[in-house]
Amino acid sequence: MQTASLVDLGSNSARLVVYEFEPGRGFWLVDEIREVVRLGSGLAHNGELSSGAIDRALVALRTFADFASATQLPPLRIMATSAVRTARNRESFLDAVRAMDLEIDVLTGEQEAEQGVIAVANSTALSDAWVMDLGGGSIQLSRMQGRRYQYGTAHPFGAIRATEQFLTSDPPTVAEVAELERAIDDDLGPVLEEVAASGLPLVAMGGTVRNLARAVQRRGDYPWKLMHGYRLRAEQLDELTEKLCTLSSSRRARVAGLNPYRADIILAGALVIRRILQAARLDALTISGYGMREGALYQQFLAAPHLLDDVRDFHVGNLLWRYPQPVGHTDRVIGLSAQLFAELRPLHGYGAAEADLLSAAARLHDIGKAIHFRDHAKHGAYLLSSAPLPGFDHREQALLSLLLLYHRSGKPNRAPYGPLLDDTDRHILMVLETCLRLAEYLERSRTGRVQGVRARIDPTVVTLELIADGEPWVEFWETRKQAPLFESTFGRPLRLEIVPA
Amino acid sequence: MQTASLVDLGSNSARLVVYEFEPGRGFWLVDEIREVVRLGSGLAHNGELSSGAIDRALVALRTFADFASATQLPPLRIMATSAVRTARNRESFLDAVRAMDLEIDVLTGEQEAEQGVIAVANSTALSDAWVMDLGGGSIQLSRMQGRRYQYGTAHPFGAIRATEQFLTSDPPTVAEVAELERAIDDDLGPVLEEVAASGLPLVAMGGTVRNLARAVQRRGDYPWKLMHGYRLRAEQLDELTEKLCTLSSSRRARVAGLNPYRADIILAGALVIRRILQAARLDALTISGYGMREGALYQQFLAAPHLLDDVRDFHVGNLLWRYPQPVGHTDRVIGLSAQLFAELRPLHGYGAAEADLLSAAARLHDIGKAIHFRDHAKHGAYLLSSAPLPGFDHREQALLSLLLLYHRSGKPNRAPYGPLLDDTDRHILMVLETCLRLAEYLERSRTGRVQGVRARIDPTVVTLELIADGEPWVEFWETRKQAPLFESTFGRPLRLEIVPA
Repeated sequence: MQTASLVDLGSNSARLVVYEFEPGRGFWLVDEIREVVRLGSGLAHNGELSSGAIDRALVALRTFADFASATQLPPLRIMATSAVRTARNRESFLDAVRAMDLEIDVLTGEQEAEQGVIAVANSTALSDAWVMDLGGGSIQLSRMQGRRYQYGTAHPFGAIRATEQFLTSDPPTVAEVAELERAIDDDLGPVLEEVAASGLPLVAMGGTVRNLARAVQRRGDYPWKLMHGYRLRAEQLDELTEKLCTLSSSRRARVAGLNPYRADIILAGALVIRRILQAARLDALTISGYGMREGALYQQFLAAPHLLDDVRDFHVGNLLWRYPQPVGHTDRVIGLSAQLFAELRPLHGYGAAEADLLSAAARLHDIGKAIHFRDHAKHGAYLLSSAPLPGFDHREQALLSLLLLYHRSGKPNRAPYGPLLDDTDRHILMVLETCLRLAEYLERSRTGRVQGVRARIDPTVVTLELIADGEPWVEFWETRKQAPLFESTFGRPLRLEIVPA
Repeated sequence: MQTASLVDLGSNSARLVVYEFEPGRGFWLVDEIREVVRLGSGLAHNGELSSGAIDRALVALRTFADFASATQLPPLRIMATSAVRTARNRESFLDAVRAMDLEIDVLTGEQEAEQGVIAVANSTALSDAWVMDLGGGSIQLSRMQGRRYQYGTAHPFGAIRATEQFLTSDPPTVAEVAELERAIDDDLGPVLEEVAASGLPLVAMGGTVRNLARAVQRRGDYPWKLMHGYRLRAEQLDELTEKLCTLSSSRRARVAGLNPYRADIILAGALVIRRILQAARLDALTISGYGMREGALYQQFLAAPHLLDDVRDFHVGNLLWRYPQPVGHTDRVIGLSAQLFAELRPLHGYGAAEADLLSAAARLHDIGKAIHFRDHAKHGAYLLSSAPLPGFDHREQALLSLLLLYHRSGKPNRAPYGPLLDDTDRHILMVLETCLRLAEYLERSRTGRVQGVRARIDPTVVTLELIADGEPWVEFWETRKQAPLFESTFGRPLRLEIVPA
């Protein structure tokens, strides 16, 4: 097991994250310390890091370094971004850091953008997209093509900087807002025209956009709090932005979902993103919960070009790496459920996308046993809904969570994820759940006695032939109890037969 | 690691449970198969197990045996109770079981009662109580004294038997109910008078009473679904019983919380328990989620007399056995939080009961890391509220769950467990949480750099001296951030000083 200790020293906050990992195999966050240092605060006025900001950053770095030495972490990889990069007095700050016996990398804009793209390429199913990183100081806008960083541009409209430079009244005046928007148009106009013309999606990262998305989630009936993969729609952002424009900073601090520590700068962030979506003629952006820090992790985790072969497969595997399962049983449930899905295709007609979801659910079906055997279906659904599952969108993750929840009993119900799933999804859920649950009970003793299945589909009944040596009694008996689920999914009764292998 | 595979063949259901355990150290349920066999059905009519009941029981046993052999479990310990014990044709049933190469023990009423008492003694904080096991065939009523079974009596008022013998109409007539109650008075009168005179609590086990308690929980605003340790109040049971008396069996099957498979016999169970509480002049009983099966587990887990030395200590330890934690850090958080509690006693005045809860919370504070580091406080609360914690009552378990939930951030709030906790509990929560959280951050690097604490309590400020070699910077800095919590709990600002060891 190796350890990565990464520090991201941004314009707004400093964060230490500690990962344990087995290269190429799996990784897991094991610690995190975050300090709001506002290193970029004041920078817009005279181009220098203020002495207060420097002091706060040094305190944070001292804290991280002290923690690292006490807990015997490997040397910290400290990455400084826009605030340090652009400050006229950066050398005196860097000297002060080095005087603490710490190494610090000031990333170029391009390095920073590349790391962001690596994170997106390894945590979404996208190959081509625009990646936007909105920090305190600047915005990086990068083109990802074939999962690689192609080129990018940086623009001085980070949330702190835009606030200090444009929104000096509280709340800002109409004229201030108009001037900010004009400046954005001037600076970003050409690249946003290119974004619009490309027709590609926009993926956005950074604390500001995540926090805005959280506030939007809270205003609606969004069924969970997961942020990575969330689609923030332009009209929702517009509505929130309009509201924030009327509120003073101290009242914004009380808006549900908004972080009080960002209340002063969040409005500038909202105005910038709104303008970008308008100019790029996009009706939504997708949040990435992963960014520059995770890009740096992947640089340690995988050889160049630091790309996972298969994002979805890896992240499902990463959960199994964390909550190990008996390989034989899991493989057999994957195999039997896939066979059932294929044999029953004349009754449902679904294809590769659904088969892929079923396979992921089969791989993960028992992870809840890491909590307790009793209610392990419920615990599995909890595990699957309490952290992002990169590579799967929220609809897919909701379906997976429900497939785990009902994999042993109960009538599948999409209600907990109502707004994410429609009636078609409900039918998909029923079909996949039926395949998964039958496979689970065909493997009731977890010893592979049922070697395969064949279905004979007749107009009034479906007969499932269980191919087995001997008589797999517990499998036969337990699977038979699932006939009501089968019938409610496929409208025909289920009959079981044991046939010799 | 050893495995116990126990089968409980009762009058209503047959259940296989599989535990993994390290003798004396820890145990964990790893599998379970349950079949509703209704072995006792019809027994009241002619004193014989019916051929249908025998067939169902043999199918269930064959299923368990098949599972056991496929998964290489140790020989099943099959325990038969009242239905088999009292059936005139028991030998032919036992012969049929033995023909399957299975051993089966027909427990005497006393053995059964003793196992129930062992379960209660090992899963509650009680020394002296009455223990009632209401099955399908009979009721066992036992006196537990000094955690040992002292004596007991059996009465033919199990839920199936009482239904078949007394409640032949559906819903039953007033006369039928009256006759059942008269029969209970005649048979149980003397022992219930003894129960009343003893002033001791009544602990009740069995599926019928658990199911009634679940229906009562569902009718109110009870904040969780845990059953073990739940206090079922007589007036709530009366209200439910009155309602059930007016419903036919098929309508009872639709009452929220009631198991449809028990709908036909649940009313008899309710009437019997109601009458028992009335005659024993008790205003409540306490549910035990553990019974004869767990008694049998303890017989394998511990040498005679099969009693845990310290029930609460063991079950907290059992969770740690399941979700292991680094011993050093955990011990130091226990120690520092206890020191803080003692040093701050002039400000709160709490005693041993609260110190004991704090210690349990400190032992368990990080178990949520078994799920994810991020949100591990929330995950810990989930773990602690998703299964019983034997030895702690529901109020205590709610406090522990909240102590875990807020151990790193947030303002402690009793709202999630509103009906279980009052304003005094809220203050206890604040005080204990403050001690726990300070201890956690005094151990931020988890390496024992803060060796101890002393408090100087002044009228306008509290100064906490951190006893340390060198300068535990991350501990100092992170603990300082908790000053607002300290001040809201104790009404005075907190100052930190580092003093040499």
